[in-house]
Amino acid sequence: MEKRTVYADNAATTAMSMRAIEAMTPCFMKIYGNPSSLHSIGQEAKEVLVDCRERMAARLGCKPEEIYFTSGGSEADNQCIRSAALLGARKGKRHIVSTAFEHHAVLHTLDKLKKEGFEVTLLDVHNNGLITAEEVRAAIRPDTCLVTVMYANNEIGTIQPIREIGRVCREMGVIFHTDAVQAVGHIPVNVAEDNVDMLSLSAHKFHGPKGVGALYCKKGLPLSTLIEGGAQERGKRAGTENIAGIAGMTAALEEACEHLEENMERLTKMRDRLIEGLKKIPYSGLNGDAKRRLPGNVNMSFEGAEGESLILYASAEGICLSSGSACTTASLQPSHVLMSLGLPHEVAHCSLRITLADTNSEEDVDYMLEKLPKVVERVRNISSLWDDYVSGKIPHVLGGKTQG
Amino acid sequence: MEKRTVYADNAATTAMSMRAIEAMTPCFMKIYGNPSSLHSIGQEAKEVLVDCRERMAARLGCKPEEIYFTSGGSEADNQCIRSAALLGARKGKRHIVSTAFEHHAVLHTLDKLKKEGFEVTLLDVHNNGLITAEEVRAAIRPDTCLVTVMYANNEIGTIQPIREIGRVCREMGVIFHTDAVQAVGHIPVNVAEDNVDMLSLSAHKFHGPKGVGALYCKKGLPLSTLIEGGAQERGKRAGTENIAGIAGMTAALEEACEHLEENMERLTKMRDRLIEGLKKIPYSGLNGDAKRRLPGNVNMSFEGAEGESLILYASAEGICLSSGSACTTASLQPSHVLMSLGLPHEVAHCSLRITLADTNSEEDVDYMLEKLPKVVERVRNISSLWDDYVSGKIPHVLGGKTQG
Repeated sequence: MEKRTVYADNAATTAMSMRAIEAMTPCFMKIYGNPSSLHSIGQEAKEVLVDCRERMAARLGCKPEEIYFTSGGSEADNQCIRSAALLGARKGKRHIVSTAFEHHAVLHTLDKLKKEGFEVTLLDVHNNGLITAEEVRAAIRPDTCLVTVMYANNEIGTIQPIREIGRVCREMGVIFHTDAVQAVGHIPVNVAEDNVDMLSLSAHKFHGPKGVGALYCKKGLPLSTLIEGGAQERGKRAGTENIAGIAGMTAALEEACEHLEENMERLTKMRDRLIEGLKKIPYSGLNGDAKRRLPGNVNMSFEGAEGESLILYASAEGICLSSGSACTTASLQPSHVLMSLGLPHEVAHCSLRITLADTNSEEDVDYMLEKLPKVVERVRNISSLWDDYVSGKIPHVLGGKTQG
Repeated sequence: MEKRTVYADNAATTAMSMRAIEAMTPCFMKIYGNPSSLHSIGQEAKEVLVDCRERMAARLGCKPEEIYFTSGGSEADNQCIRSAALLGARKGKRHIVSTAFEHHAVLHTLDKLKKEGFEVTLLDVHNNGLITAEEVRAAIRPDTCLVTVMYANNEIGTIQPIREIGRVCREMGVIFHTDAVQAVGHIPVNVAEDNVDMLSLSAHKFHGPKGVGALYCKKGLPLSTLIEGGAQERGKRAGTENIAGIAGMTAALEEACEHLEENMERLTKMRDRLIEGLKKIPYSGLNGDAKRRLPGNVNMSFEGAEGESLILYASAEGICLSSGSACTTASLQPSHVLMSLGLPHEVAHCSLRITLADTNSEEDVDYMLEKLPKVVERVRNISSLWDDYVSGKIPHVLGGKTQG
């Protein structure tokens, strides 16, 4: 095949859609007012804000007053978790349940809370990348103030049984937060049906702009501020509202939701075709459950082929993918997500994440299926780690010819 | 004059400039990668990020590694102040010096710190809206960990003697932060020459996009995180970088700096013409020093004409202005800034802020000079407060015919 550019790192970020850009554009020079201003230009901006809040709420299954706009998913995670912790502390409850493979926006917030006297139980995930609602139930204690479990994992794409976990939390009277940054716009998410109390999302994961996100906080739950200042977002999030960003996010979410079913169906087929093809590479294996995963997510290990080298060789072929999360690229540690699945250090280190979006074509899949086996071979040829497998110094844990 | 739209609320927010929009646009669908991604599309985004950081630093007089991108001025204020407080607490220093008329992003952060055991000295401002470096010196104690004084006030536009305050702080070994949200892009700001240790700025105040800002933190000073998560911004600010926003902000700052002198000169003349004209309205007075103020800022009180009514009647004439800060519009309290000048409650309540930008024309000034006196008259005609002045129930404090 002729060389082409294939962007298959959509879990890291996505290109904006035309519809999102068209929603933003009028907010640059036309509807540019500060929504807090009483004059006509301010009030026009306020109308956009009110309208977007209603439309976001409609897509998420909540009331407009339960939506708070933030600068992105990380801020939303921080604010939700801190709010529940603060409320818990007031009641003498200082225990939080989460999982070992959450995003760092969750894990690092929990680390900080530990230093402030909270106790955190991180549930181990099974080697398929899933936990069960019953495991959450068993971890909840009388002093548990929060359960926070991500909707879908950012590296391996596994989708947790959120509805069941939510039901357990309701039964036990514990606040349930979910980091839904990878889920919203990709699979059906409805906070009412999912028994969720707090949820975080980020626009740039579904073809919206970077630098904007939202959180849902169930009415009646006290949300505390992370950023102090003006009374924007009903006093819960200071700073002039990013109207253009909010308009872009809203348009992108609507577009994603309108095409959700067809995109899921198409991407699932493309994903499975990729997995089937790449499994033919010797000593390879799929990470995370084969069925309960995001439609666009492929995450595989190739023994003796280091992730960083795979990315660079793939990039030279025009294929953009990642080893783990983009947020941890700078780190030389193997992915904490893959380690949490029980993979040996050297296997976790030799992984690729391919994340497709509706912008990808069948030709992209064809191209990757042609190029990536050669990329793996090339990396192994220069890898001393691979030599150790060949010489028998390191035993193979992933099977030989064809893997499952 | 024929009816026109005059946007004179540029301290609340500004329309974006074409140059800022043009800098953002390629980042939507072309350079859309995640700068943390190792592949080519990620690295293109990283190049934009590195380039913008260098250009921002060049304009502010610091090193690129001293710039941290945030979601705006409020977040920057929160993070700077919290960082200095945390550092202070580690050394047993829990006293902070600020002024009574800071932005709420500063004051509310200080309120929160008070609850955490910090002591805060808020310096009174003189009735011209200024403080002196010697007053700061007198307020500094052995346990002072931070002085935070805004560069230019968001309501009355007065410009503090930042360089002198910075010099005092250096002498006394105290960290100096300035909220420069209203100053950057409007008057010369150079952190090295101004002896500043930490500074906050916001893009949408100088024709950049909303939802993006930056902070400067002098090398060697430990910055603590406000938003936990990925290792973006050298581990100090989590969340995928808002590349488009950062590119727009950088372009806007460069544009503002390139035209700084000419804009200042032109706006100062327009401002002074407005003040001279509006002072002819009986029982009016200028708030804040007439000279040491932002080139585009006019803030005046008109006895017996409530600010909210003035705004709405002016808006009906196509003139967009504000009473106090847009961030506090929802509040029925008179502006804490105007109260800090020693104005009586009822005078503070009867104020207008007109903030001009380079986008305003002499015709805008003509139009306001024609319409605003009638607006004041109309509001007084329906005001029971004005009746109280007329009947002598409330004594005038602002002079009759012409005011200074």
